Amino acid sequence: MFLREDDSLMLHTDLYQINMGETYWFDGIHENTAVFDVYFRSMPFDSGYAVFAGLERIIEYIKRLKFSESDIDYLREQGYQEDYLSYLKELRFTGNIRSMREGEICFNNEPLLRVEAPLIQAQLIETAVLNIVNFQTLIATKASRIKQVVKDEILMEFGTRRAQEMDAAIWGARAAYIAGFDSTSNVRAGKLFGIPISGTHAHAMVQAYDDEYIAFKKYAERHKDCVFLVDTFHTLKSGVPNAIRVAKELGDTINFVGIRLDSGDLSYLSKEARKMLDEAGFPDAKIFASNDLDEETIISLKQQGSKVTAWGIGTKLITAYDQPALGAVYKLVAIADENGVLQDRIKISNNAEKVTTPGKKNVYRIINNKTGKSEGDYITLDHEDPASEKELNMFHPIFTYKKKRVKNFTAKDLHVDIFKEGELVYTTPDLEEIAAYHQDNLELIWEETKRYLNPQEYPVDLSTACWNNKNDKIHEVSSKVEDVE
Amino acid sequence: MFLREDDSLMLHTDLYQINMGETYWFDGIHENTAVFDVYFRSMPFDSGYAVFAGLERIIEYIKRLKFSESDIDYLREQGYQEDYLSYLKELRFTGNIRSMREGEICFNNEPLLRVEAPLIQAQLIETAVLNIVNFQTLIATKASRIKQVVKDEILMEFGTRRAQEMDAAIWGARAAYIAGFDSTSNVRAGKLFGIPISGTHAHAMVQAYDDEYIAFKKYAERHKDCVFLVDTFHTLKSGVPNAIRVAKELGDTINFVGIRLDSGDLSYLSKEARKMLDEAGFPDAKIFASNDLDEETIISLKQQGSKVTAWGIGTKLITAYDQPALGAVYKLVAIADENGVLQDRIKISNNAEKVTTPGKKNVYRIINNKTGKSEGDYITLDHEDPASEKELNMFHPIFTYKKKRVKNFTAKDLHVDIFKEGELVYTTPDLEEIAAYHQDNLELIWEETKRYLNPQEYPVDLSTACWNNKNDKIHEVSSKVEDVE
Repeated sequence: MFLREDDSLMLHTDLYQINMGETYWFDGIHENTAVFDVYFRSMPFDSGYAVFAGLERIIEYIKRLKFSESDIDYLREQGYQEDYLSYLKELRFTGNIRSMREGEICFNNEPLLRVEAPLIQAQLIETAVLNIVNFQTLIATKASRIKQVVKDEILMEFGTRRAQEMDAAIWGARAAYIAGFDSTSNVRAGKLFGIPISGTHAHAMVQAYDDEYIAFKKYAERHKDCVFLVDTFHTLKSGVPNAIRVAKELGDTINFVGIRLDSGDLSYLSKEARKMLDEAGFPDAKIFASNDLDEETIISLKQQGSKVTAWGIGTKLITAYDQPALGAVYKLVAIADENGVLQDRIKISNNAEKVTTPGKKNVYRIINNKTGKSEGDYITLDHEDPASEKELNMFHPIFTYKKKRVKNFTAKDLHVDIFKEGELVYTTPDLEEIAAYHQDNLELIWEETKRYLNPQEYPVDLSTACWNNKNDKIHEVSSKVEDVE
Repeated sequence: MFLREDDSLMLHTDLYQINMGETYWFDGIHENTAVFDVYFRSMPFDSGYAVFAGLERIIEYIKRLKFSESDIDYLREQGYQEDYLSYLKELRFTGNIRSMREGEICFNNEPLLRVEAPLIQAQLIETAVLNIVNFQTLIATKASRIKQVVKDEILMEFGTRRAQEMDAAIWGARAAYIAGFDSTSNVRAGKLFGIPISGTHAHAMVQAYDDEYIAFKKYAERHKDCVFLVDTFHTLKSGVPNAIRVAKELGDTINFVGIRLDSGDLSYLSKEARKMLDEAGFPDAKIFASNDLDEETIISLKQQGSKVTAWGIGTKLITAYDQPALGAVYKLVAIADENGVLQDRIKISNNAEKVTTPGKKNVYRIINNKTGKSEGDYITLDHEDPASEKELNMFHPIFTYKKKRVKNFTAKDLHVDIFKEGELVYTTPDLEEIAAYHQDNLELIWEETKRYLNPQEYPVDLSTACWNNKNDKIHEVSSKVEDVE
C-alpha cells in the first residue's frame, strides 16, 4: 500500500492529537496560544552530557505541514465531521519555534526546543517532533561518546543493515557525523547530506572468487584505495598473507590503506597482523576493525594494547543498543486565556522528577569568563535576562543546598529562533559547520562531565523566579487535590 | 537537503556493494548467477520462535529498483567511470526471490529469504533487504510474544514518539498488527496500511483546561467513545472521581469505555480504580494501562492480580528495547561458473555457528499428521523433495546424536516465489489475512517452544545431503588454509 498514495507526514501523529484538536476546535480554544517544552528527564547511557540533533528534519517537516487530499479522505472515513475537516484542510503552521542548534551539548530537564503556537497546531506536531528528536539526539549522543574514546583515529558508521528501518539508517548516519564520525557506509546518506562515504569489499567477494588472493587482486586492479577484509577463511594464515602478497605485487599502482578484521579476538589478531604488516614493509598500513564495537569495547581493546586504529561502528551505535530510546517528552507549560494572556500550567506526579516546570522559559549556558568553562545551565522565565545581571545565584532545583554565586560570566542563550509566526527565520548551517560547532562546544564542558564512566553531574538550575513559580504552582494544584478528598 | 532531490532507494546500500559491483563488472562476472540466503544466527529475546516480516516493503523496494539521475550524478562525483555508470543506469532487478510469507513462524539458521540473481544485483540489494527484514522481523517477534501473554485482551501500539525515526514507527506498527496487536496510535500507519487506529486524549488536554472535570466533559461532548486519562493531577483523588462524575452526568449520550493509567503503581491503582468504578455502577468500564510495558511487566501485573485489561505498548515494543537489533545476515551460498553451473560456496569461521551452509537450498516445516504439530524445520538442497519421501531422518546439525525418524508427515515448503526473472509473481495478502496466517501457524508449534521463559529449542535440521555437502566444503577449505602454512 505504501508509496501508492500522496504520503504527507501530517498524519504521522497519534490519533489522540486529532481528537484533542477536535475538542479544542469545537470549544473554540483551538487557536489559543500554547507553549510546550521538549525535554528529556534522565541522561541516556548514564552519560554526563548529550548532543542535540534533529532540527533539520523538524524544519523540513514543519515547512511542509499540510493535510493532503488523501489525509482528509482518510479522516472522513474515520467519521470526523466535515466542518472540522474543512478547518484542518486549511491548517498550516503559524507559530514560533525556538530550538537548540544541532550539535549543541544538552542535558536532562532543560528545554531543547520550545513551541509557541495555536494549541491545535502545537498538539498535532508533538508526536513527529518527539519521534525525530528522540532518535537523532540519542544517536548523536552515543556517537559523541564513541568519538571521545577514539579521539583522532578513523571512525566510520557502518550500521545500515542493523538500523531500525531506513529513516533510522540515514538520519542516524547524519547524527553520527554531527558528533564526530568521519564517514558513513550508506551511499544515500552521503548523497542526501553530503557525508563522506567509505567502504571497500565484503566476504561475499572473496567467496565469489573462491580464492582470496585472486579476489584481492581483482579488487585492486579496479580500485586505487584498498582495504582488504581478511577473515573470510583464516585471518592470519590466509587473509593477511594474501593482502601482503597483493600489496607487494601491485606496489605503487595501488594505495594499500590497510586490512579489516571483522571477527575473532580483535586484540590478538590486530597485534599479530601488525607484526606481519611491519615485517612485510607496510608500517603505514592501518588495521581497521568492526564487529559489535562501541565505546566500552574500544576502551577495552585500547587497554589491551590492540593495534586497531580505524573503527567501523555498526549495530551498537545505530540502534543505541544499550539504551535504544531517549524519553524526551513534550509538555504544556503555558496557555493563553480568553484575553490572550499566557497562564502557566503544571503536571503533577508522585515522582518529583516528573513534575513539569511551568511557564514560558529560556535556557542559558553560564560560561565563566576566567576558565572559559561552563558553570552550568540556567533556566529562566521569559522576561528574565541573566546577561544583564552582575551575579547569579545558581542552586540545584531539588537539593537546593547545593548552590553557588557566579560573577564574571557570559550567559549564552542556548535557543535560536527557528520559526516566527510560521515563517522560517533560521538558516541551517551546513553539516561541516554543525560538526565543528559540536566539537567547539565540547570545550566548554569540564572533562569530569565528559568522562565515559561515572561522570560528574552537570548543573541544570532554575532561576529563583522560575523555581518560585514552580513551587507556587505545585502548592496550588496540591491544595486543589486535597480539597477533593 | 533531504526531500529536495529525487530520492530513490537505490543508493540505500553500503558503498562496498557498489565497489564490489565495479570489480565484478570490470572482470565480466557481474551477471553470473549468485544465490544468497538471508538468515539470523540466534533467537532474539531468547525467544523460542520468531515472526518473519518485511516482505511487503521488500517487494515495493525491488519493484522500483533503479538508479535515478541524481544517484548517477552523485556516483560520478565520487569518481566512478562513465562506462560503469552507464551500466548501472540500465540496471533493473532480473532475478528470482523466494521468501517466507509475512507472519510465518521462523527460527535461527534457516533461510527466511533466498535471492538468486546476477551477482551485481544481488549485492546491491543486500543492505536494504537486511535493513528491512532485521527491523520488521524483530518487532513482529516482540509483538507476538506480548500477544501470547495478553491473550484476548485489548492490545494497542503506542510507540511512535519513541520509535527510531519515522519509518520505524509506521513499519513497526504494521509488524505489531501482523503479530496480533489490535490497533496503532499512528494515524499515518492507519492510512497507509489499513490498521485500526486508537487514542483519545493526553495530559495536555487536562492541563489546557486546568480543570480535569471540565476537560473530560469537553472531550465527551464531542467524542462518543471515551477513555479518560486520569493521572494528570492525582489518579485516585482526582482522575477517577472526575471520570465517574462525567460518565454519570452524560449517561447514555457517551460510551464510557474506561480510564487510562499512565504512571504510578499500575497494580495498586488498577485495583483501587476497579473498586471505584464498580461501586459507581460501571463494571464494564475497562482499565487501560501504558508506561513502559512489555511481556515481562504484563506477566508481573497479572500475577499481582491487577485489573488492567487493555494494554498500550510503546517504547519497549517499538524499539525492541531488550534487544534492539536482529543480526540477520545475507550470505553467498552458490555462484555460477563460466558455464553457468552453480558452484557452492562457504565462509569459514573459528566460531562453528558462523560457518555458512553452502548450496541452493529450500526449507520445509515437517508437520506430524497425527498430532498436527511441527516436528521441526528441514533444510534441503534444491534438488531434494522431502514430500516424496516416506520417512525422514532428522538430526541436530551440530549435536548429531540428537536425532529422530519421522513418518506420516506433511512437508510444507516455507518459501513462496516472489519474483521470477524480475517479474513479481506474488500477490501480497491483505493485512488481516497476514495476521490470521500468523495466528494459525502458531498452532503448529508446541506450547513448550512458545513459552515466555526458557523455551524448548525448536529443531532446525539439515537433510543428510545438505549436511554432507557442508562438511565436505568445510574440509575442502580447511585443507587449503593448512596448505598456506
